[in-house]
Amino acid sequence: MSWRDLKTLLSKFDIDYGDIVEIEGKRRVRGVVMPRSEIADDKHIVLKIDSGYNIGINIEDIEQIKKLGKVKKEKRVSKVKRKENLPDISLLSTGGTIASKIDYSTGAVHPVISTEELFSVMPELFETANISSRKVFEVLSENMNPEMWEKLAKEVYSEIKKGADAVVIAHGTDTMAYTGSALAFSFSSLSVPVVMVGSQRSSDRPSSDAEDNLKDSVTFAVKGDVGEVVVLMHGSSEDRYSLVHRAVKVRKMHSSRRDAFRTINDIPIAKIENKAITYLSDYRKVEEESKIETGFEKKVALLYFYPGMDEELFATFAERYKGIVIAGTGLGHVSENLIEVIKDAIEDGTEIVMSTQTIYGRVDMKVYSTGRKLLSAGVVSCEDMLPETALVKLSWLLDKKKDVCELMGKNLRGEITKRTRFDTFLT
Amino acid sequence: MSWRDLKTLLSKFDIDYGDIVEIEGKRRVRGVVMPRSEIADDKHIVLKIDSGYNIGINIEDIEQIKKLGKVKKEKRVSKVKRKENLPDISLLSTGGTIASKIDYSTGAVHPVISTEELFSVMPELFETANISSRKVFEVLSENMNPEMWEKLAKEVYSEIKKGADAVVIAHGTDTMAYTGSALAFSFSSLSVPVVMVGSQRSSDRPSSDAEDNLKDSVTFAVKGDVGEVVVLMHGSSEDRYSLVHRAVKVRKMHSSRRDAFRTINDIPIAKIENKAITYLSDYRKVEEESKIETGFEKKVALLYFYPGMDEELFATFAERYKGIVIAGTGLGHVSENLIEVIKDAIEDGTEIVMSTQTIYGRVDMKVYSTGRKLLSAGVVSCEDMLPETALVKLSWLLDKKKDVCELMGKNLRGEITKRTRFDTFLT
Repeated sequence: MSWRDLKTLLSKFDIDYGDIVEIEGKRRVRGVVMPRSEIADDKHIVLKIDSGYNIGINIEDIEQIKKLGKVKKEKRVSKVKRKENLPDISLLSTGGTIASKIDYSTGAVHPVISTEELFSVMPELFETANISSRKVFEVLSENMNPEMWEKLAKEVYSEIKKGADAVVIAHGTDTMAYTGSALAFSFSSLSVPVVMVGSQRSSDRPSSDAEDNLKDSVTFAVKGDVGEVVVLMHGSSEDRYSLVHRAVKVRKMHSSRRDAFRTINDIPIAKIENKAITYLSDYRKVEEESKIETGFEKKVALLYFYPGMDEELFATFAERYKGIVIAGTGLGHVSENLIEVIKDAIEDGTEIVMSTQTIYGRVDMKVYSTGRKLLSAGVVSCEDMLPETALVKLSWLLDKKKDVCELMGKNLRGEITKRTRFDTFLT
Repeated sequence: MSWRDLKTLLSKFDIDYGDIVEIEGKRRVRGVVMPRSEIADDKHIVLKIDSGYNIGINIEDIEQIKKLGKVKKEKRVSKVKRKENLPDISLLSTGGTIASKIDYSTGAVHPVISTEELFSVMPELFETANISSRKVFEVLSENMNPEMWEKLAKEVYSEIKKGADAVVIAHGTDTMAYTGSALAFSFSSLSVPVVMVGSQRSSDRPSSDAEDNLKDSVTFAVKGDVGEVVVLMHGSSEDRYSLVHRAVKVRKMHSSRRDAFRTINDIPIAKIENKAITYLSDYRKVEEESKIETGFEKKVALLYFYPGMDEELFATFAERYKGIVIAGTGLGHVSENLIEVIKDAIEDGTEIVMSTQTIYGRVDMKVYSTGRKLLSAGVVSCEDMLPETALVKLSWLLDKKKDVCELMGKNLRGEITKRTRFDTFLT
C-alpha cells in the first residue's frame, strides 16, 4: 500500500489526523493518527499510542483500520495555580524542539511557550514543581551567538534573583554545548541548578525524546543540589535513562542519535532512571549566592588545522581576531610552515591557544619538537578541554581582559580534568 | 629515591645505558637499562625486558640493582639475502616513529631506514617476507601536505610496477588518516594491499606499540588480498590485537592512546590476533592491475563552523579557495547569516560541501529549514563521510576537474556507507 493509497484509505474510513484508530496488522495497535511531518517517510503511518509514545507502522503491514473516535480538544487552562509547598522552576525557552506541541490539523509543530500551554500538554510536569515558562529566543540553535549567550545568562540570573529554585533551559541540540559553556563561565557561583535540555527528535516524530528529557530535567532541577550548568539528554538509544553532563565537558557526538551527547575525557555527573537520580561523579554543590560575570569577545575564532593549510590564511585569521583556538593534530601540532606566522601573531598581541582535533585525550606540546616550538612561540595549551569549550572560554577571558596565559590551562568550571580517567574513551 | 639519586646509584654500581641488570623491588625484573628519553618522567627507570617490551619501574620501589652484563653490539648485516619462495614487500618510510631504533649511548631514537638496519633490529620480520625498506620522506606527519601525498602515491605505484607483492608505509599518526585517504583516491584499483602503519608511542617509551604494529602490518601485507589502502593500528589498549581500518573511514580519536584509531560510521575490515587475520566486513579484493590517478588541488580548505562566525570571514575563505568543506553542526547546519555569502560564493564558482562536526552520523540537509536553504544555495552533502576525508576527496576531485556535485556524495572508495550500522557509534 503506497502513501497515496493510505490517504485514500484514510478518507474512505473518514479518518483524519487527530482521530483515535485501531490498526490491525502484524499486531493490533491503538492510537491517535499523527500528521505527516515533512521529515516522515511515505512508508509509515505514525500513531501516538497511550504511553504518549509515537510509533511508525509500515503501511504495507496494515490489514484494517477502525475509527474509534476523535482526540479531545486540548483543555486549555487559563491560569495554572501555584502550589505553595512545591519548588518554583523557571523554564526558559530558546527555540529548541524540546517543548513543542502538534497542531493535529496541519501537522505543524509549535513551540510551547506559556506556562498554561505547557500545563495543557504535560500536566504531570506540574506535580512536583510550579513551572513558569517563558520565551527568551525563538531560534534554531545554529543561530545562537555570543551576544545571545550573554542575554541568556542575564535572563537566568534574573530568574534566580526573582526566587527560582532552579532554571531549566530548552535549547536546540546543535550548539547546546557551546551555549552551556557560555553559561558555565558566566556564573562563578550558582545558588540553584541550571539545567539545559534538548531533544534530538521533535515531538511529531516516532521515538521523540522530547518528553522524557523534559520530565527528567524537571526531576533533576527539583531534587538536584548541583550548583553547575548541566546538559541533560538521553543516555541510551532506548528510553531507559538520561544522563546529566557538565556543560563544559559535553559534546554532540552524533548527528541524529538520541544518545548523541557524551561527556568527553570525564564521566557524567548523574544518571536518571525512573525518576531516581544516581550520582556518578563529584560535582560542585549549590552555593549561598549566584554570582554573574558574563560577556564575550566576538573577535575570536576556532581554526581547524589540516595538511596543506597555508600561512597566508593563518595570517588573515590572526589579523582579524584577538584570540584563536587551534584544533591541532594529535598532542597539539600544526605544520612547521605555520610556526613563524603564529609567533608573529602572538607578538602582535593575538592570543593563540591549542586544543586537539582528536576530541579525546590531552594536548601535550612538550613531547615532540613541533609542540616545543609552539610553546616557545607562546601558544597556550588547552589541556584536555574540548575545542568548542576552549573557544567560549577564550572569548569570555578576553572580554574580561583576564590573563589568558595564566587562566586558559587552569580549571575554572570543571572544563579541565587534571588526570583523565582511563575508562572515559568512547563511552 | 629521586632521579639524581638514581644516577648516583647507577654510577655507583657502574651501570650504564645498555647494561643488562636485575632489579629487586616489588618484584624481580631483568632487562636492559634504557636511556631516559626527553619524554620519560623522573620517577621511573625504563628496562627493555626479554619479551622486547619496555617497562617503567618506579625508582622508589627499587631495593637493589645488580649488573649482569652488557647488551651485545648490534650485529649489522651488510646484505639481507632475498629468499625466492617469499613474497616481496616494499616498506616505504615517511618519518613516523614506527620503524626506529635506539642509540643506547645517547637515548636518541633514529629512524630505521635501510633494509639492513631493519633486519638488524627486527630479523623476525624477514621470516615471512623479503622486505625492502627505503625512505621517501623524513618528516613529522603534521608536515605532510598535498604535494607529498602525490609523490607518495607515485612511489607506491612505482613499487608495485617493480613487482612488490604489497606496500607497507610507515607514517606518523597525526595526519595518517589524511594521507591514507589521499592514497585511496589516487588508486582506482590496486593489485596489491597498501598498508599504512604507525605507532602512538615511540620505541624508546615503555609500552611502545611500534613493533607489534609493524609485525602485524607485514602479516596482513603477506596474507591479505585486500585491494584497498588500509591503516593498521592497535585495536585495544593492551597488546592483544590490531585492527585494519579502511583509510577513508578511519580517524585518530585520541591524542595519546595506542588504540586511538577508530573506524567511524562503519566497522573495521579485519582484526589481527596472534598473526591470525579475522575479517570483520566486506572489502574490495585485489585486482589485475593497479591504476593510478593522483594529484591534489591545493586551494581547498576545511572550515569548522562555530556560533558567532562572521560572514566576512567566510567571504575571505571563499575568495581564496576553489573548494571548501564545512564542518557544520548537527545534520549539517551553519548560522543563517552565512547562507547568503555561501550562495554568492557558489555562484562565483567555489565548490562548497557539508560535513558534520559531530564526527559520527550523517549529514541530512533535508530535515530542517537551515539545511534546505543550504541545499538550495548549492551546498553538496558529504553524507556520512569524515570532514578530513571530504577535504582530501574535494582536493582530488578539483584537481581532476571532476564533477563535485555529482561525485562528492557518491561512494568511490568506501568513504560513504549507504546505511550506517547501528552498532558503530563510539566503538
